[in-house]
Amino acid sequence: MFVNVWSLWLVLLSAIVSLVVAFLLKKKVSTADPGNEEMVKVQGYIRDGANAFVRRQYKTLAIFVVGLAIIVGIIYAVYPIGEGSNVKWWVMVLSFMVGSAASAWAGWLGMKVGVDANAKTAQAATKGLTPAFNVSFFGGAVMGLIVTSAALGGVWLLYYVVGEPIVILGFSFGASTIALFAKAGGGIFTKTADVAADLVGKIEYSLPEDDPRNPAAVADNVGDNVGDIAGMGADLFDSYVASIIGAMLLGYGVSRLDNFDDINGHILASFPLVISAAGLFASIVGIYVISKMKKTSPGKALNNGTYLAAALFIGIGALFTLFLTLSSGIETGGTGRFGNMVHKLWLNYGAAAFGVLAGIVIGLTTDYYTDDSKHPTQAVAESSQQGHALNILTGFSYGLLSVAPPTLGIVVVMGISYALDGVIGVASASTGMLAIVGTIVANDAYGPIVDNARGIAEQGGLEEDVIALCDKLDSAGNTAKAVTKGFSIGAAALTVLALLYSFIEEANVLLDDTTFDGDLNILNVDIMIGLLLGVMIPCIYSAVLIFAVDKNAQVMVKEIRRQFEEHPGIIEGTEPADFERCIDIATLGSLKALVVPSLLSVLAPIVVGVLFGVRALGAFLAGTILIGFIFGLLLSNAGGTWDNAKKYIEDGNLGGKGTLAHAASVTGDTVGDPFKDTAGPAINTLICVMSLTASMFLRLFVAINNGEGLIQLGTLLP
Amino acid sequence: MFVNVWSLWLVLLSAIVSLVVAFLLKKKVSTADPGNEEMVKVQGYIRDGANAFVRRQYKTLAIFVVGLAIIVGIIYAVYPIGEGSNVKWWVMVLSFMVGSAASAWAGWLGMKVGVDANAKTAQAATKGLTPAFNVSFFGGAVMGLIVTSAALGGVWLLYYVVGEPIVILGFSFGASTIALFAKAGGGIFTKTADVAADLVGKIEYSLPEDDPRNPAAVADNVGDNVGDIAGMGADLFDSYVASIIGAMLLGYGVSRLDNFDDINGHILASFPLVISAAGLFASIVGIYVISKMKKTSPGKALNNGTYLAAALFIGIGALFTLFLTLSSGIETGGTGRFGNMVHKLWLNYGAAAFGVLAGIVIGLTTDYYTDDSKHPTQAVAESSQQGHALNILTGFSYGLLSVAPPTLGIVVVMGISYALDGVIGVASASTGMLAIVGTIVANDAYGPIVDNARGIAEQGGLEEDVIALCDKLDSAGNTAKAVTKGFSIGAAALTVLALLYSFIEEANVLLDDTTFDGDLNILNVDIMIGLLLGVMIPCIYSAVLIFAVDKNAQVMVKEIRRQFEEHPGIIEGTEPADFERCIDIATLGSLKALVVPSLLSVLAPIVVGVLFGVRALGAFLAGTILIGFIFGLLLSNAGGTWDNAKKYIEDGNLGGKGTLAHAASVTGDTVGDPFKDTAGPAINTLICVMSLTASMFLRLFVAINNGEGLIQLGTLLP
Repeated sequence: MFVNVWSLWLVLLSAIVSLVVAFLLKKKVSTADPGNEEMVKVQGYIRDGANAFVRRQYKTLAIFVVGLAIIVGIIYAVYPIGEGSNVKWWVMVLSFMVGSAASAWAGWLGMKVGVDANAKTAQAATKGLTPAFNVSFFGGAVMGLIVTSAALGGVWLLYYVVGEPIVILGFSFGASTIALFAKAGGGIFTKTADVAADLVGKIEYSLPEDDPRNPAAVADNVGDNVGDIAGMGADLFDSYVASIIGAMLLGYGVSRLDNFDDINGHILASFPLVISAAGLFASIVGIYVISKMKKTSPGKALNNGTYLAAALFIGIGALFTLFLTLSSGIETGGTGRFGNMVHKLWLNYGAAAFGVLAGIVIGLTTDYYTDDSKHPTQAVAESSQQGHALNILTGFSYGLLSVAPPTLGIVVVMGISYALDGVIGVASASTGMLAIVGTIVANDAYGPIVDNARGIAEQGGLEEDVIALCDKLDSAGNTAKAVTKGFSIGAAALTVLALLYSFIEEANVLLDDTTFDGDLNILNVDIMIGLLLGVMIPCIYSAVLIFAVDKNAQVMVKEIRRQFEEHPGIIEGTEPADFERCIDIATLGSLKALVVPSLLSVLAPIVVGVLFGVRALGAFLAGTILIGFIFGLLLSNAGGTWDNAKKYIEDGNLGGKGTLAHAASVTGDTVGDPFKDTAGPAINTLICVMSLTASMFLRLFVAINNGEGLIQLGTLLP
Repeated sequence: MFVNVWSLWLVLLSAIVSLVVAFLLKKKVSTADPGNEEMVKVQGYIRDGANAFVRRQYKTLAIFVVGLAIIVGIIYAVYPIGEGSNVKWWVMVLSFMVGSAASAWAGWLGMKVGVDANAKTAQAATKGLTPAFNVSFFGGAVMGLIVTSAALGGVWLLYYVVGEPIVILGFSFGASTIALFAKAGGGIFTKTADVAADLVGKIEYSLPEDDPRNPAAVADNVGDNVGDIAGMGADLFDSYVASIIGAMLLGYGVSRLDNFDDINGHILASFPLVISAAGLFASIVGIYVISKMKKTSPGKALNNGTYLAAALFIGIGALFTLFLTLSSGIETGGTGRFGNMVHKLWLNYGAAAFGVLAGIVIGLTTDYYTDDSKHPTQAVAESSQQGHALNILTGFSYGLLSVAPPTLGIVVVMGISYALDGVIGVASASTGMLAIVGTIVANDAYGPIVDNARGIAEQGGLEEDVIALCDKLDSAGNTAKAVTKGFSIGAAALTVLALLYSFIEEANVLLDDTTFDGDLNILNVDIMIGLLLGVMIPCIYSAVLIFAVDKNAQVMVKEIRRQFEEHPGIIEGTEPADFERCIDIATLGSLKALVVPSLLSVLAPIVVGVLFGVRALGAFLAGTILIGFIFGLLLSNAGGTWDNAKKYIEDGNLGGKGTLAHAASVTGDTVGDPFKDTAGPAINTLICVMSLTASMFLRLFVAINNGEGLIQLGTLLP
């Protein structure tokens, strides 16, 4: 108990400082001017809608979490971790519950601040760019800091008190469970409203964006909060913790295999925590500097903040790594990479620093495919002149092409980090990439806040130039998102790889005295079967999510048409639209649609592990990673390109609104909506949940025919 | 020299019988009534267009083939196969040239008969269903029999004369090279014309399908011949030969590893040839029976023919396997599976029989997603009522879901055939699945013939009821295609797996005395890098092909609009459309667009092998197989669903033509065109070409740092 590595106090310190800063910023937001009566009213609707959704979602979630907690308890009671371990079954259950609670709390609080900041941003926009930017940016920053603080604080506490890295697995699994619901559910909600609002409001009745006469307008704004703030926050909370636990387990495990002292195992397991603390401090400074910068171009300010945080992380990370090398009991006498812990820590620092740089490069290259000043997006806009079909084909093709640069980026990061310190190096690269997650979440959450602010300004009847200013802030959000997306996708791929490595390593340890070899040779039939089943799952998962949006949107479309037909006063502006019905449709529809994907993501790895054994399950995870990575990029980038091609035309290019090109580009945008905001990002969560499920239930799989599964494919051959 | 297995004469016999039957059928087609003057004229245009395209294509191809032949010659001169081998460098070059020539000849002859049969089918339709069906079916059957006969005859000749299975590698690589050009080039041609004809003719000017006033109508018909007949034939020629060579190499290699006598190696290597001969006889009987059946439902007749061929194959295959077990010198004394050649042959017969059954099951389940009497296609049609975007989203989602049944099917086939006889069992399953390729090609080629017949009937001014009869024949083609598609996709996946196995086994043999272990462990960094690079390639390849269609179609759209604007007489029917310009655009565009994908598919595996070594290249191939399988299914099935949803609406459902639903369904169909007829099927060819390239150039990779590649990732770790 009580891990004796003093550098770990830096982790607690970073979590506390971050929490304090978050509450200071929250106060700044809450004391800002909320604007006129109409704005307060609209904001109230959005808040109530968002709260109602999250409340219902958390209730459904509670059942799921309790059910999983019972299963986790049973598994760890029947197959305990070991005689000497402090991680009894109830400790694991507790860790799981704490992880769920921390993630749910962070998501809820962050969303609350976001909903509070939107009207205030609109009001501040009447005074100028800088005040408006600050309110919205602070709102996003609260989310970023709360998420990292809760994640790092929780991991620190459990690890410090229990003294074994494996306890964090429960915490991470709990966070993932929340992310699964928050990301997929929020994604379905937000796109149901968005698609329906566009289909009827924009296309059939030619209403402008966010028009208060559109019954789906408020639901659309609610969706931004529950999907893009709460959902995205939970998603990155999940990746963040998973990257830390992956690196911790690998480090601790490898140190045992290499016969280091236990204290050296803890030093190596502390590295991802300490390096994440460095990233958190870097993010805090970055956020402070952004708020003080001149705001000539808000988009540049956000990106410069990210670059600054990355640079600071490399500096502070070096300092913290130095501290860690000063730990008492550290082994320095050995020769070669694995005999010298100091040397090992610096190699992993190198991998982490390289990770953050790679994240930026991946983001920038990906950005090329979705930026409307670049060729691909303009080509999509131009092809729209030939109608709907060519818009879709061109956008989809660029989406396919956009897969190449990040894949090459990941290949380079993997090669180099692996060369530095093998699988631990890869895990450290993922930790490094996610270390500045505070900044990333802050920039991401900024987007929906200003998007909402624009809607409230429109609905609150503010002047045209205020709305134009909100538009400017909004497009800055898109610029920032391009870079942060690179981090999310790259880091998710590396993180799940690290989880895969730690899964097999743990299986190797558990099955040490049997014939299990932990070798995932593609040429063996169980491995190829695992891979094939693995690549199938993200297809089904994406289909289910897109269907959910598709079906719910059709229901909402009918409701909007009904309102317009039965109450002609709505269009004339004499009668208020019944937006609550739309919120209800989105809420119920998305919760109902969550059942299949949630069960799929937890049950699929269990079924594969039970039937085909541990090796096939490892291959299964690898399959999900491979196709998940490709689909995540394809769906996100194709969606982004369509979205920006539409904006490009709406900016007056190629004839602007009212042309065939515009109608076609709206089709592309609508197709892209569930691609980029529902299925695409939810795949990240899916592969993370499946990897963690595999690790959580490993003891069950190991117990079945020594990890060979019920159908012992390995024994089929002589 | 001269393989001493008398059962091999059955192979020669099957090829000769098949060729004779093909020429008898060809004569039947050529003596049929070609119809009225207008029909003959239109047919002449189609024939000239198709011939012009194929001539130009073969010219380009000749350069490519000669270039590759030189490279092959150099590689095998510098790294010869071995002292005692008969396969000198010039033998390999010759084999490569013969393979290219055989495939090119079969494709050209088959297309010629197809082009001849179309007008005659239309004319025969004036006399009734049975005569019309027979002409078109005979036209397709010629293609089916020529392809199998040329493939099997060529393989037999080379193997019998040279006496070493490895010589077939060159033949197979040659056939693949042709397939690459024929399938991708033909696919681009046909969809350029189809998309452009629809976009301007149908949507902007509301012309019916195949209207002679549409300048792209003839190009569209030409496309059916060069893409769906010549291209598809070359594609299946390629898969067929590849499945045979994969099984031959594995069988011969494993027999050496298990210390069988050389004659037993030849018996095992003869098995795929003999079983394919059984399939060819089964196909011939099947074709005969179909032509004699009552034609109440032509769709059922085609499918029953397939089932009959499969059943006959199982019977004749058993007989031929029995013959093979009677070979002199066969080892029967050993115990267990690997010690007894007779036992081994029967196990592989079981795998082959299981393969053909699985092909049917996979086809039928896949059919569910594209059949317009089933839920998915109708749901896509219904969602079209809400506009273009929901049509796309629904179709794409069903495409994603449709991946699941065939994946599960392949998993079951793999598991069972592997249980029967390991990797050779998997190879035998693929050979079995492709054994009735004569029937499959016949049914597939039937489709474009009747499609063209319909166009000629329309343009030749035949009566409405004749056109309706052509429509009926056309829809039978779609029904048959659903089942044959299952064979093509399933067999392609298993075939490339067998090629992957034989690639690594050959590397194991070549690198026997070094540290190379031939273990593709996913957890090793070079394997994961190989996998990641592998999954990237089919994305780029699909994108390039879809772009090609997209861009060429835009050029053709402009040309059609220009003609309509400058010559208003065309629309009024007083002035002929200049369809030659459209054929030119499709021809030049598709040939130009072929350069990148062709180079990509040959260069990518060479680059990976040279840089990262043999193991990474194996993983790279596995990655391309995994994603190629998924993309192939997704693109083909989504496209098929959209196509049939459009037809469902055009049949008068949901308001029929002129509604928003119809316009949206046309968008879906247009998006689906390059998905299902260009990119989707070309991916099969791509993964096959890449696997064969890897095997062909294996000796080069082995020579670089003992197969570790220039960047020796394996040595990065201590």
